Order: sequence, then C-alpha cells, then structure tokens
Amino acid sequence: MENCQGWAARDPSGVLSPYKFNRREPRNDDVSIKISHAGVCYADVHWTRNSFGDSKYPLVPGHEIVGVVTEVGCDVARFKVGDHVGVGVYVDSCRDCEYCDVRREIYCQKGLVTTFNSLDKDGTITKGGYSSHIVVHERYCHKIPDGYPMEKAAPMLCAGLTVYTPMIKHNMNQPGKSLGVIGLGGLGHMAVKFGKAFGSKVTVISTSESKREEAISLLGADKFILSKDSDQMASAVKSLDFIIDTASGDHQFDPYLSLLKVDGLMVLVGFPSEIKISPIQLNFGSRCIAGSATGGTKDTEEMIDFCAKNKIYPDVEIIKIDYINEALDRLTKNDVRYRFVIDIEKSFS
Amino acid sequence: MENCQGWAARDPSGVLSPYKFNRREPRNDDVSIKISHAGVCYADVHWTRNSFGDSKYPLVPGHEIVGVVTEVGCDVARFKVGDHVGVGVYVDSCRDCEYCDVRREIYCQKGLVTTFNSLDKDGTITKGGYSSHIVVHERYCHKIPDGYPMEKAAPMLCAGLTVYTPMIKHNMNQPGKSLGVIGLGGLGHMAVKFGKAFGSKVTVISTSESKREEAISLLGADKFILSKDSDQMASAVKSLDFIIDTASGDHQFDPYLSLLKVDGLMVLVGFPSEIKISPIQLNFGSRCIAGSATGGTKDTEEMIDFCAKNKIYPDVEIIKIDYINEALDRLTKNDVRYRFVIDIEKSFS
Repeated sequence: MENCQGWAARDPSGVLSPYKFNRREPRNDDVSIKISHAGVCYADVHWTRNSFGDSKYPLVPGHEIVGVVTEVGCDVARFKVGDHVGVGVYVDSCRDCEYCDVRREIYCQKGLVTTFNSLDKDGTITKGGYSSHIVVHERYCHKIPDGYPMEKAAPMLCAGLTVYTPMIKHNMNQPGKSLGVIGLGGLGHMAVKFGKAFGSKVTVISTSESKREEAISLLGADKFILSKDSDQMASAVKSLDFIIDTASGDHQFDPYLSLLKVDGLMVLVGFPSEIKISPIQLNFGSRCIAGSATGGTKDTEEMIDFCAKNKIYPDVEIIKIDYINEALDRLTKNDVRYRFVIDIEKSFS
Repeated sequence: MENCQGWAARDPSGVLSPYKFNRREPRNDDVSIKISHAGVCYADVHWTRNSFGDSKYPLVPGHEIVGVVTEVGCDVARFKVGDHVGVGVYVDSCRDCEYCDVRREIYCQKGLVTTFNSLDKDGTITKGGYSSHIVVHERYCHKIPDGYPMEKAAPMLCAGLTVYTPMIKHNMNQPGKSLGVIGLGGLGHMAVKFGKAFGSKVTVISTSESKREEAISLLGADKFILSKDSDQMASAVKSLDFIIDTASGDHQFDPYLSLLKVDGLMVLVGFPSEIKISPIQLNFGSRCIAGSATGGTKDTEEMIDFCAKNKIYPDVEIIKIDYINEALDRLTKNDVRYRFVIDIEKSFS
C-alpha cells in the first residue's frame, strides 16, 4: 500500500526518521510530481517540535517543493509530463471566497489546506516534501522556468515568496528607496537580493558582526549596521524608507522603528512571540508596521518569473535527507548560508 | 510689563490658577490674536501634571485656539485685523526641511516649537491658549471661514486635525468602506463625523454600554460594539477596512486587530504606554498598524475647509476658565460630550 518514501517526526522531540506512507492516485485535476528537491524552512522546526501544540504525528514536513511532473489527471491543462514544477505552503483552498477569487489563497476564508500537518478535504493529514513524490491539484502547482536550477527554485516557494509579496504590495519596487533588512537567513538574504533588483539602497541590520562581510561582498548589500552598536544605530536614525524584519526570535522593535523615515514602513514576516512598540515611535514618525504571510498563487508566479528574468537565485547548502536532523539543529542556530535544500532524488534512490 | 492674562499650573499637582505674563509685540510677520475660545485637550492634562517629566512651570496650556486678529506685522499678507483665525499645536518650525517644505511641519526635522511648554527661538517658554491673547507667526495661523461658530472651531485645531490627517493619508475617504472607531471622546466623535461624511459605514467600539445610544442617535454611527462582550466582538471579526484607535489609556490590541479584514489598517492616534500585538494578528491578515501625530498646516487648512463645506461641527461643552480644574478632572474620567471649550472672552472680561 505505501507508495511514497519519506522522513517523518514521530513525537515532539522532532527527530526525523524514515517513514513510508501512501499518496492518493491523481484525480482528474491533479498533478503527480516526482520530488527532486525540498527546501528546509523554519516552519519545519516549529511543527516537527510541536511549537504550536497542533502537530499530528507522524509528521512529514517540507513546503518548498520542486520536482518533475510524472502524471497528470485528464482535466489538467497547465502541465504535462516532464514539466519542472514547484509546490509551496498550501495544496488546497476553498477556491470560492473573495481571496481565492483574486488568487490570494493564503487568506482563504474557508478552507486553506497547508502542505503538511493539515486536514485535507478527504480526511487525511497532508504530508510534505521530505518525500519521494507528491500529488497536488494543479492550481497549487507552479511552472519552474526552463533553465532555472531546481535546487535554487525550492526556497523560492516559501522564503522567496514571503518577502517578495509584501515588497510588491507595499511598493518597495520603486528604484532609489532605502531598504533595511533585519536578519540574514533564508528570508533575509532573499530580501537583500530583491531589494538590489528593485534598485534600492540596501542596509543589512544584524546582531552579528560576522555577517558584515557576507552581507556586503557576497550579497551585495550597500551598508551593514551592527544592531548592538548604539553609535551605528544612532547614525542611521530616520534613514530608511522600508524595513523587512525577518527575525523570528524575540527582539526589540523600537530601535529598528527609529531607523525609519517619516511615513516609513516596517514589514514583519517572522513570528516572534510578541511585538512591543512605543506609540511614540509610530505616531511621531507617521510610521507603520505591517504583517504578511507568504503569498497567493498569483504572487508566486510573478515572483518566479521575476527571479528567472533577473537571474535571482537563493544561496543554498545542498544536503541529503539523512543529514536533516543536524540541519534542523543548525537552522535553529542560524548556521546556514542561507537555506538548506534536500536533494530528494539522491536521498531516496 | 505683563500684557497677558492667563491661567497656569504651578507644579505637578496640575492645579491651574490665574497668572499674568508678557507676550512679545508682533514682529513683521506676526499676527496678534485676541483669543475667544480655547479647546481642552488631553495633552493639557498630561503637561499640567508633568506626565512626561518635561513640564516647565508656570505652564499655560491650550493648543486649540481661536480668536480675532487685532494687529498684524508689516509683512503679513494672509490676514487683516478682524479676521477669525485659529492656532493649533505648534507655533514655529524650521521652515526649511523636507517636511516644512511640504507643509507637514509637525514632522519638522530641526525646530518644531509647540504652542506651550516649548523653548521658543527667542529663548522664552511658549504659553498656550488659556490666556487672553497670543502672538504667532502668520504661517501657523489658519483662517476660520465666515459663519463657522468660533466655539466649535477650536477643537478642530487638534482633535479634528489628529483624526482627519491619517484618514486622508490612508485613503479612508473612499465611500463604502467600513470604519471602526475605538473610544468616543474628543477625537473619536470627530472620527465618527468624518467617517460619515466620507460615506463610510461607521462602527463605534466602546468599553461602555452607555455610549451605544449616543453613538447611534447623536453621532449617527451605523453600529455599536461593546468591546467587553465577546459575542459582539466575535460577530464583527474581519468586518472592518479601517480602525481609528483614539483610546489613550492602556488597552489590548489583538481583539481589535481581529476585527480588521485582510489588508485592514488600524491607525493609532492616542498614546497608551505601550502597544502589544501578536504577530499572528498582523501576518495572517496582512494587516497594518500605523501611527499619526496631528498634522501640518496644509492638512489643517484642508480639514477646516472640509468641515465648513460639509457642516461638520464638534460637539462641545462650553465652560469658563474658573471651571478648568473640574473640567480637567472630568476629562480624565472621559466625562464630557465631547470637548470642553473655554469661553476665553467671557473668562477674562
């Protein structure tokens, strides 16, 4: 019965080990995908370890999935066998609400089904990309353009999309703006790349001096601020139009908000346990703090096209699945440049 | 020497009593104004009581000032003797920075001089509108249109402007939007009036059931939610495009943010001691929280014109200056519909 190989966490220790399970046969509008690569997102740490108390074990994580189409249902029009495709953080939605109507399914009012640990419409629990293949309704699959390296495409499906979507929504793609990026992980390094592609002056703000060289030389940032250095912070007060805050750990907000110009905007894409702000930082600068959650299928397509056109590639460290427990530990220490990607094909051959 | 009668607080008890002092003679670009009315703003409570630790006694509060021009300097072009004019929360700025250039002086980078308790350019400490006359550079004076009642004009200079400015900045003046107003004081009741004038469906959200009747019948709100009633709150989840939060006391934010639709925006105009938000409320709704501080001289003029054209009048309770200590106490208990206005002319005759 088990037609799919994967790795699963069995309990809140979060330790993953091999696990076989069954995927459905493709329905009329499904695409079956032989997974080639899966990106490792911080969400995988959270849910394998039951951070939110809702983990359903055995839990197969992974929502940055790319691979090759091996079979399509009879009603599938957009894909054919052999296509390179990607799947992101959700695999179904109601397809009928005002947000699904405009392809912002992430805000679906009725029935978002996330790619793993979610109750699917057929009553099964979804299982993610740390596995040999996946079967998904074509709406939630995305074409990976010819020539775009598959191992680099995987992190775009969550990390890339999560920063790209609010950057577009909030008009950060106007040349000549000054953009601050807090945190230099999977999301942060993509924010730097997008910022440069949009023609912004990009400042990386980090708690670690060791990030200075890589921010400037490797990623092409224009400026680096060590957030612990109050002189460096003071010299940048009211200098930024935008900040993207990718830090998921708890941190102060007021010192960063003070770096924004009048009317400046900070977008939060991480999940610290709480945001604490002084009204003075908001009111006296006419400033704004906004949240954002990944993006819809429309954003995903636009983002992939933008990356292909502008030759934007995530920086990845390729691993095999048997390294995943070390990789998740290293990820919790932010010890990766900048995204682990599992070579699924080599892992399960 | 003392050419001006006023009332001042002498120490952090905040108790006001009569106080005579000297105003400068009008300079070439100054306007001298015989004050007819002064609105009572919560800022007057804060600074008379030294809430922020920077109060300079004797302190004459009042930054919602209207009156009649009695003298103009030789370079004054915009005003003549007899004009009805208003003065708001500031009386000078650098007139040279990028914000002064676009008449958003409240964000002046170098030299905002507030209407009271501020170090003026001549080394004196500014004294506010609880006084018989004031001398102000013409840039910071505003024409009150003919026929607009002076006692109603006063609260526009701070309360009205403080809510009008972010409503325009954030495009709340599109008909058909749903607007929530938290708090029904001087600012909140103006937000309701502006919302109705903009064609919004206005919901008042209050901690006090006693506000229901007045919100609906007196102010014309469409709906009332008692924030303590979890059923009423739950039934309004994701129903609002905008919220204006005028509450200055400490309060929770997540329950109110949950009332916003996806992409919804909350504007904060009060000064609670801290804002605490769950990232989930921001991220999973693509929501935004923005701050705002009164407005510039350009906003002020537009707001006054809008009010005159649309017959929008603050609701006021007229007092004489000898009632001010009781009035400030009642204001701290939110016991006023909706703004105390001091009849200065009758107080000092």
